[in-house]
Amino acid sequence: MTKLHFEDVREGEIRELGSYRVSKDEMVAFAQRYDPQPIHVDESAAEASIYGGIIASGWYTAGVCMRLLVDGFLIDAASMGSFGLDELRWRAPVRPDDVISVRNEIVDARESTSRDDRGYVKNELTARNQDREEVLSWTATNIFLRKNSNA
Amino acid sequence: MTKLHFEDVREGEIRELGSYRVSKDEMVAFAQRYDPQPIHVDESAAEASIYGGIIASGWYTAGVCMRLLVDGFLIDAASMGSFGLDELRWRAPVRPDDVISVRNEIVDARESTSRDDRGYVKNELTARNQDREEVLSWTATNIFLRKNSNA
Repeated sequence: MTKLHFEDVREGEIRELGSYRVSKDEMVAFAQRYDPQPIHVDESAAEASIYGGIIASGWYTAGVCMRLLVDGFLIDAASMGSFGLDELRWRAPVRPDDVISVRNEIVDARESTSRDDRGYVKNELTARNQDREEVLSWTATNIFLRKNSNA
Repeated sequence: MTKLHFEDVREGEIRELGSYRVSKDEMVAFAQRYDPQPIHVDESAAEASIYGGIIASGWYTAGVCMRLLVDGFLIDAASMGSFGLDELRWRAPVRPDDVISVRNEIVDARESTSRDDRGYVKNELTARNQDREEVLSWTATNIFLRKNSNA
């Protein structure tokens, strides 16, 4: 299969990456391992908090978004990873049985000035719940191989 | 137990949050669920890549850092969550059996100007491997309750 290289993507491209229903069991299991704060793992503490019940760890929500981004875009791309993110924002709580939909927009694509085998693709990802309320957003820069590379 | 409120933390405070040895099984299991790119889940594809072998999903590394931050700091704090992160950076690959050490520094602490029950605590987290090489960093703003709050 021919993968998407740097030359195959363009600023302004928008991809709707599908949706995923989160379950309480899955969000709690994630938080027990990686973010065991009471609002994420302890039903009664969460009910007594300002949130009124269990909410997802923001890292779990990020993981769900990443899975949709990989399945719908990066798995088909000659991507070499990412330097990181700017402005990861948790904008509203994610609760059990929410359905999270993800959209990715390429906001910039530029060739590396120092290495001619790659380019940098800047992506803005947005996640919304079933009420179209924004729950998460991030800006990420990914490294894509150019067609002249040997990989 | 009395939790750490906004008034109990200070700009300039540094906390060494301990370390964690990552295993190949755990990083691959995480990536199979949340970031199934070949360099994270496919041994032979990873060996043929520029990385020369399996590397951790950056999201897994972030999860390990978060766990150390919760266990060593946030679990004792009257924290109400976080708006998000700025400048999450994956600076070097994390590989099986690396030992990741995490340090957190409070770089700013200011009262909310609109809500008198809370303040905003800005944290810079840095993770290094067993060779003291920086592998991840982030800046996060957490919401801490003030002592005059009812929570």
